Amino acid sequence: MERLNYVPISEIRRVKDGVKDPIFLSRILADIFRINTLYMITFSGSGHIGSSFSAMDIVTLLWTKIMRNPNENKVDSDTYFSSKGHDVPGLYALLMGLEKLDFEYINKLRRLDGLPGHPDVETPYIVANTGSLGMGISKARGMAIANRLDKKSGRFYVLTGDGELQEGQIWESLQPAANGNFSEVTVIVDHNKIQSDLEVKNTSDLGDLEAKFKSFGWEVARCDGHNLDALVKVFDRFNKIKDRPQVLIADTVKGKGVSFMEKMGGDGLYKFHSGAPDFETYQKALTEILARVNKGLNDSNQPPMTLVEVGLPEKHSFVNQQKLVSAYSDELLKLSEENKELVVLDADLMLDCGLIPMKEKFPDRYIESGIAEQDMVSVAGGLALRGKLPVVHSFACFLSTRPNEQIYNNATEKKKIIYTGTLAGLLPATPGHSHQSVRDISCLASVPGLHMIQPSNEAETRMAIRWAVNENQESTYLRIVSIACDKLFELPEGYELSPGKGALLRGGRDAVIIGYGPLMLGEAVRASDLLATKGRSLAVINLPWLNKIDEEWLMSAVREFKTIFTLDDHYIDFGQGMFIGNALSKIKSDKKVINFGVREIPRSGHNAEVLKYHGLDYESLAEEISSHLG
Amino acid sequence: MERLNYVPISEIRRVKDGVKDPIFLSRILADIFRINTLYMITFSGSGHIGSSFSAMDIVTLLWTKIMRNPNENKVDSDTYFSSKGHDVPGLYALLMGLEKLDFEYINKLRRLDGLPGHPDVETPYIVANTGSLGMGISKARGMAIANRLDKKSGRFYVLTGDGELQEGQIWESLQPAANGNFSEVTVIVDHNKIQSDLEVKNTSDLGDLEAKFKSFGWEVARCDGHNLDALVKVFDRFNKIKDRPQVLIADTVKGKGVSFMEKMGGDGLYKFHSGAPDFETYQKALTEILARVNKGLNDSNQPPMTLVEVGLPEKHSFVNQQKLVSAYSDELLKLSEENKELVVLDADLMLDCGLIPMKEKFPDRYIESGIAEQDMVSVAGGLALRGKLPVVHSFACFLSTRPNEQIYNNATEKKKIIYTGTLAGLLPATPGHSHQSVRDISCLASVPGLHMIQPSNEAETRMAIRWAVNENQESTYLRIVSIACDKLFELPEGYELSPGKGALLRGGRDAVIIGYGPLMLGEAVRASDLLATKGRSLAVINLPWLNKIDEEWLMSAVREFKTIFTLDDHYIDFGQGMFIGNALSKIKSDKKVINFGVREIPRSGHNAEVLKYHGLDYESLAEEISSHLG
Repeated sequence: MERLNYVPISEIRRVKDGVKDPIFLSRILADIFRINTLYMITFSGSGHIGSSFSAMDIVTLLWTKIMRNPNENKVDSDTYFSSKGHDVPGLYALLMGLEKLDFEYINKLRRLDGLPGHPDVETPYIVANTGSLGMGISKARGMAIANRLDKKSGRFYVLTGDGELQEGQIWESLQPAANGNFSEVTVIVDHNKIQSDLEVKNTSDLGDLEAKFKSFGWEVARCDGHNLDALVKVFDRFNKIKDRPQVLIADTVKGKGVSFMEKMGGDGLYKFHSGAPDFETYQKALTEILARVNKGLNDSNQPPMTLVEVGLPEKHSFVNQQKLVSAYSDELLKLSEENKELVVLDADLMLDCGLIPMKEKFPDRYIESGIAEQDMVSVAGGLALRGKLPVVHSFACFLSTRPNEQIYNNATEKKKIIYTGTLAGLLPATPGHSHQSVRDISCLASVPGLHMIQPSNEAETRMAIRWAVNENQESTYLRIVSIACDKLFELPEGYELSPGKGALLRGGRDAVIIGYGPLMLGEAVRASDLLATKGRSLAVINLPWLNKIDEEWLMSAVREFKTIFTLDDHYIDFGQGMFIGNALSKIKSDKKVINFGVREIPRSGHNAEVLKYHGLDYESLAEEISSHLG
Repeated sequence: MERLNYVPISEIRRVKDGVKDPIFLSRILADIFRINTLYMITFSGSGHIGSSFSAMDIVTLLWTKIMRNPNENKVDSDTYFSSKGHDVPGLYALLMGLEKLDFEYINKLRRLDGLPGHPDVETPYIVANTGSLGMGISKARGMAIANRLDKKSGRFYVLTGDGELQEGQIWESLQPAANGNFSEVTVIVDHNKIQSDLEVKNTSDLGDLEAKFKSFGWEVARCDGHNLDALVKVFDRFNKIKDRPQVLIADTVKGKGVSFMEKMGGDGLYKFHSGAPDFETYQKALTEILARVNKGLNDSNQPPMTLVEVGLPEKHSFVNQQKLVSAYSDELLKLSEENKELVVLDADLMLDCGLIPMKEKFPDRYIESGIAEQDMVSVAGGLALRGKLPVVHSFACFLSTRPNEQIYNNATEKKKIIYTGTLAGLLPATPGHSHQSVRDISCLASVPGLHMIQPSNEAETRMAIRWAVNENQESTYLRIVSIACDKLFELPEGYELSPGKGALLRGGRDAVIIGYGPLMLGEAVRASDLLATKGRSLAVINLPWLNKIDEEWLMSAVREFKTIFTLDDHYIDFGQGMFIGNALSKIKSDKKVINFGVREIPRSGHNAEVLKYHGLDYESLAEEISSHLG
């Protein structure tokens, strides 16, 4: 069996007691936290290694040497948080190692009631929810204003990414902090020079960072972010500055501490931004870090580490695995060959959105915007005004919210634009609520002339992007599930997309459930099968149209049913179900509509447990449906 | 009778033929366009004088001397647009004067089928919809990319405000333009140093603008924006730059051309940002500009101007005028006295949001954020995390969209925050769709723990903010109509706000209409009165709760009715009406629900004509209701 290892708290205590020099201790502890971070991510199956490792030396130094009463509620407490939040596995490992967080959480990364994939204030010592980029400096200023009003002292250390500096809010937040002389705020840029897939300079180069921060009135320092002595000097200097906020541009190495994680892959893509390493990679990485720790201990006349060993959990096995984004990617490339006006835009998610083939084949018609969604969407608006057909990409959670006003502004110009939001819906639940897109229908359904579609399998994904490019005269929002998923149903033979209309996946007599997307329809179909074993007959309809429903079709589709269930991969408020309910309220009828959907802030955890938590797995659905059928 | 004057096209032609020196001609034409801008705004009753005047010299020079085939669809056409868009009355006057726009539009500023309050591509020679700030540089880059793909030449001149530079998107858009060597893009900052109410430096100081732009890789020039010779030199120099985009920081004077419009008011507030001057002010301004034009003509041996005279239209007279924002302002001040944790945040709309008393009385608890909604909302998040009660303000159209992800991020921290969006709903219709907030319910209703309320009169406004501060344990979004309006109904005696529940304003037998806010309920009450004269009896219910409706109350409130109308001051998609319809679809019933609301992009025009256009005036409503009652 494949086995993983972590450093137990007893060993960490032993190192803390045994190593006297605080800088040397910080260095060893950082590597110990790397071992435990690596363990947590591999055990969990996903997480951000690269950023956890690049920030680890800085974060360890801050928490072990620089900050006073870090993140406590004392009158002089210093505060630390990461604005990018990707690096939180590293912070968790540190908090456990410093005994601020129950050590049992080591097996609960990205698990229900465990440690969320991005920071959340429900976790002890986490002081701000981050993971939505660019908000950290603003939040720190808000906290600092509160401190001033309450006559509290204490400094604020905010870690940002470098790719994160592409976000407009960062620059929006800088000048007010300088104008208000927020000398209690220190920003540390984890300048590891790599963002999701590419080097920063090949994504959207940052230009002269030092000159930029200076021009916004900030004190600027720059040093090697892995040189603890240099870091100590900078923090000491910053501590004496009383008339302006300070920023440290810390030159770091993404994946620092494991030689092969410190490099780009042979194909020019970085491999360790998110996700988990395979077992072989895990072992090589562990060996490398552990050797360094043991050498350090040996230099301090300490015996080597004794690790705890744990079995690697088994992976989910799929039933007819399908990947909608791959189908999308392939069809988009074909359409780009057919339509010379088609221009693709991306915001640092080229791999996740399936855009690498497009970038390689049509580099002139591929615009990499970096993490700058507002700019990207308005650039698309400019392209559309000049007769191009822009196809705009990001994760649904970001695309529907960050450039929301820009999407509306484009809509008022009545030019055709296609917006594709991947990572749509409740799952994956591992990254946590900042990435679980369960508000996008609500946020965009009122944009005039915007047709929202969510395909339910690979074939329908191809139809959807083809319809958006070739058939629809107006704009389209495509909502696509990103995770690989089981293929649990077929579309009817000869099925074609027909605006506003759905298709029956399962016949039934007692009631009907209407939904969309591979995951929720998969649960609906399973629920129907389960109910059948209990003598209940539940029809299932796939309705890929989220906000423009053909009411005549709807009336006829539900004619024979008295009870209609709707199933949203979205908050219940303002999902597709409310369109259906409202449409059916327009006629006097003997029907009742019952909505299923997400009812509270989505939990972070493994997919199956989170689906169940929210009552959206097939067993919970079947039980609820049964109870309504009496 | 009070009379206004404008310069007719015949006189403009005469000047263009008579004055030979192009610079001198530009100068005279700019003043002529100022006269016509002043006329249009006074005649219309609102518009942005200050920015139109500060930019007028630059814009006139661009269009008469600098640009090739401006804004035409030729292979070498140069393109101009204003990102801030406030200055569009001046541009309209110019386009009419240059005979690119039908001169009859001179009486159609901010009128239905006339010239919208902010730029819209439906108007000839307007190439981008702006007015939502910060998008212009991104849009220009999109157009420039299209030009490159299509092998077209032509430069792009984009005017921005200086207050507009507080928007994050500006800085998001700068570095990509430099990275792509967009030398065909020239930005001109209309640096008039005054934003909505205050000087820029007292709102949110911009710091060292030249250093900022340079640090983003742009070529920077600075000159007097009213010195045409200096401007010509800068544009000539920029024309030769081939390796980077350029920005001109044009030092201008807001209200330039009328001495008393060039100054701050005695109370420290600028008076001529928006709105229309009174007749006396109009006359003084006209006299001053006209004298300068005539002197110029005299110097060129030309006879003085002959103006056309037009009567000033009468103003709307109110029935029991009420101003909800004034009531809000007063109650907020009282609550600030009672609750020391309450902190007010504003984004350059202190006058419009009724915040000046708060700023004066509690300067420590008043945070002026400038036009930086994302920063403001995340600062509020930081304050809330530290136990403060932030009350966040902007226009509803901006507050619900620009910081949409930030509002959600705050919500996931489950701390109480109050968001107040003024200028809510379809009216005023004069500024156009960028400012008509008819999407905010949709954009925010799915935010967990956010209670949305729209009060229907001054008394209910006071109750609503008091409930949000003192009663609600979660967060609140207050949606407030800004325009002065008729008071056409009273709330029931002893009425108190009760979460999720509404109140009957008019009894009735044949049907009921449910709505919210002073304007729509005013129309509903009038429709009910009108229907009564025709033997129809329509009940009217005020339901101030927009997204959290007490379903039990609703069922009982509509029990006796078979036909239920809902009336949204919002797009029909995802307004309150859909909550009502969906709620009523949950029971089997003999009822039908019919939704009224905005069905297309709102038109710009006078309030009454736009209300009628969208079928939401009481006469249209009564007719529609009659037809449904059969």
